[in-house]
Amino acid sequence: MKELKGACIVGQSGGPTSVINASVYGVVDTALKSPAITQVLGAAHGIKGVLADCLYDMGKEDPQELALLKNTPSSALGSCRYKMKDSEEDDTDYKRILEVFRKHNVRYFFYNGGNDSMDTCNKISKYMQKVGYECRVMGVPKTIDNDLYGTDHCPGFASAAKYIATSCMEVYQDARVYDTGMICIIEIMGRHAGWLAGSAALATAYGAGPDLIYLPETDFDMDKFLADVERIYKEKGNCMVAVSEGIHYADGTFVSEAKTSATDGFGHAQLGGLAAHLAAVVKEKTGAKVRGIELSLLQRCGAHLASETDIEESFMAGKAAVENAVNGITDKMVGFERGTMDGRYLCKTKLLPLTEVANTEKKVPREWINAEGNGVEQPFIDYVLPLIQGEPKLPKIDSLPRFAKLKKIQAE
Amino acid sequence: MKELKGACIVGQSGGPTSVINASVYGVVDTALKSPAITQVLGAAHGIKGVLADCLYDMGKEDPQELALLKNTPSSALGSCRYKMKDSEEDDTDYKRILEVFRKHNVRYFFYNGGNDSMDTCNKISKYMQKVGYECRVMGVPKTIDNDLYGTDHCPGFASAAKYIATSCMEVYQDARVYDTGMICIIEIMGRHAGWLAGSAALATAYGAGPDLIYLPETDFDMDKFLADVERIYKEKGNCMVAVSEGIHYADGTFVSEAKTSATDGFGHAQLGGLAAHLAAVVKEKTGAKVRGIELSLLQRCGAHLASETDIEESFMAGKAAVENAVNGITDKMVGFERGTMDGRYLCKTKLLPLTEVANTEKKVPREWINAEGNGVEQPFIDYVLPLIQGEPKLPKIDSLPRFAKLKKIQAE
Repeated sequence: MKELKGACIVGQSGGPTSVINASVYGVVDTALKSPAITQVLGAAHGIKGVLADCLYDMGKEDPQELALLKNTPSSALGSCRYKMKDSEEDDTDYKRILEVFRKHNVRYFFYNGGNDSMDTCNKISKYMQKVGYECRVMGVPKTIDNDLYGTDHCPGFASAAKYIATSCMEVYQDARVYDTGMICIIEIMGRHAGWLAGSAALATAYGAGPDLIYLPETDFDMDKFLADVERIYKEKGNCMVAVSEGIHYADGTFVSEAKTSATDGFGHAQLGGLAAHLAAVVKEKTGAKVRGIELSLLQRCGAHLASETDIEESFMAGKAAVENAVNGITDKMVGFERGTMDGRYLCKTKLLPLTEVANTEKKVPREWINAEGNGVEQPFIDYVLPLIQGEPKLPKIDSLPRFAKLKKIQAE
Repeated sequence: MKELKGACIVGQSGGPTSVINASVYGVVDTALKSPAITQVLGAAHGIKGVLADCLYDMGKEDPQELALLKNTPSSALGSCRYKMKDSEEDDTDYKRILEVFRKHNVRYFFYNGGNDSMDTCNKISKYMQKVGYECRVMGVPKTIDNDLYGTDHCPGFASAAKYIATSCMEVYQDARVYDTGMICIIEIMGRHAGWLAGSAALATAYGAGPDLIYLPETDFDMDKFLADVERIYKEKGNCMVAVSEGIHYADGTFVSEAKTSATDGFGHAQLGGLAAHLAAVVKEKTGAKVRGIELSLLQRCGAHLASETDIEESFMAGKAAVENAVNGITDKMVGFERGTMDGRYLCKTKLLPLTEVANTEKKVPREWINAEGNGVEQPFIDYVLPLIQGEPKLPKIDSLPRFAKLKKIQAE
């Protein structure tokens, strides 16, 4: 294998996570130490920063600040949601990217994101191959949704799952404090896959979690939901429900968008979202005290509750991307393979073709969801539990988080 | 002082906090060790448990489980919202309480709560004095709202403040990740006092917090609010706002309940609350991407982010109540006095007459709020900062919280 000398670009794309910066740190730290890589550039707001030639010289950052990226939530370089057209249809962006790559002699491109980002990564990789510009392109996965194809799990998922499980356990204590009873509905992210909502079951497995969990993998039936809630509330005097934001009726309509449903007639789903909507419907039906709680952005930026396993694996994914690229690999996404050592959980990296990963979604297997479609089975718990283990040592000042402050010096 | 031998009752009332159980543990642990106290009884759901003679024998609990109360959020004994009538008006409840006290030879009554609970405590104390039943009655403060009269601060406030500040710092990272800009509105508890909303300013003081903060101590003006938000959004490309749930117009109407405001016309404040309402108004006005986040119950049960200072002080409040009562004190609430030792923050207990405390609210001083009414001044930060210090060592199993599990054995 011929050594390829040149600069690298690392960019972040899509919705952030608590640990996405740990992956960027894995890339940057490894790349800065690699003799093949002449300059490490950070793209401002993902591919948009490449198009704008807005690139930060990561070698000019203070190493201590870079190390803080491991515990700094959200995308420190900035993110984007930018859908690239096919190059056959319109190659303007691709030509511009090539121009910027040439200008900085970029020979390594690392893109840190979810499904759409892997699509971007794949398109750029294929274009560079087509025009014969030698550049090794690697995807570094991230997504709290855990829906990337071909990998056992995704960096970012476990920390969000831990945030959700812990918060559910705490809310459980609070939501049954009065003898008058209460129904509590918690809305959890995950538009198409129920990995996050299902993770609320960890709280239940440890004695303080939702009675009912609804995932987008099964069709939602409002009447059955109301019957479930009423039954539990009658039995226990309290009821806690976790719902994925992506739950939908049999016809595919999202419950959050069904503004003219016969069962409610409120028509203001945009005000407060799904939890508030379901809370209103349940209140009307049962007359009980009902509270809807949307975990919102908190669940994807709650770095103070991150899983140390997730942080280390996220770092490892970035590191593996650079190491493999320097060793001649291109056109792949780093994935995870689960194994065991001495009976304990072990995670290794593997490589997946970008073409396969791009735009394929991995859902919760139907057999991991109960027959009723209102809870998950033990294999789901067994799958998630090892991923959330370990508490990071959080850098703090005056008991508040000390996040990385990058200088973001433009590359010349 | 004559030694008074007899049983004690401890009860919890009002909205729970992350550390209210630390106070109960302070009472129970100290009372169990006190020779004067013959039996330690926990009232199920506060005064309602006394009325129902539903009392747990705390001496039968496993000491290790009791110790876990220090890190268990919400009211482990159960809470209530029960307004006692004046005994002159109707003494039915009082006679019943006396009957239960006599039955168990209760000579000490510790009531753990906020404003309304201190009112209950005061009424019971005065009634027992009137009928000549010797019983020492002590209030143990708690409230995330921090609005109890006469005490420097209230147990429970600091942990909620720390949760709010930390969450704001995390959301801040997330809410500016795209180059397209965003306005983020965070709704914080506090119906009449702005201590909690103001605490979001800690996040700003540490470099990642709201640009604007609105407290219920000043009148809210929707047009001025919109102008503030637009100005910041134009300047910075992003804007983060913290609002107290209790913000109100000049005529006293809560913004969350103003359903026919000319600026919005949505009329569905009950769906999703204030943050969603303001988000809708701001979106309509600016056309920007806007997200409303309600911290909801999370902020008052987030024990994983509790302040160690708050936990220790909460315990100390419970302990001081028992020690003082055994030493002959009655009809008081334990309060806190702030001092310094070697230039460092120090907190001591003091005693306040229940009559003075009951039903008086302490608000944020006007001079701690800026002239514009959209932020707080440095003295506010200086006041809160010492209270949030220290990280508790959290008992966990498999990286999830291990909360106390009480047996709750009925007293004979």
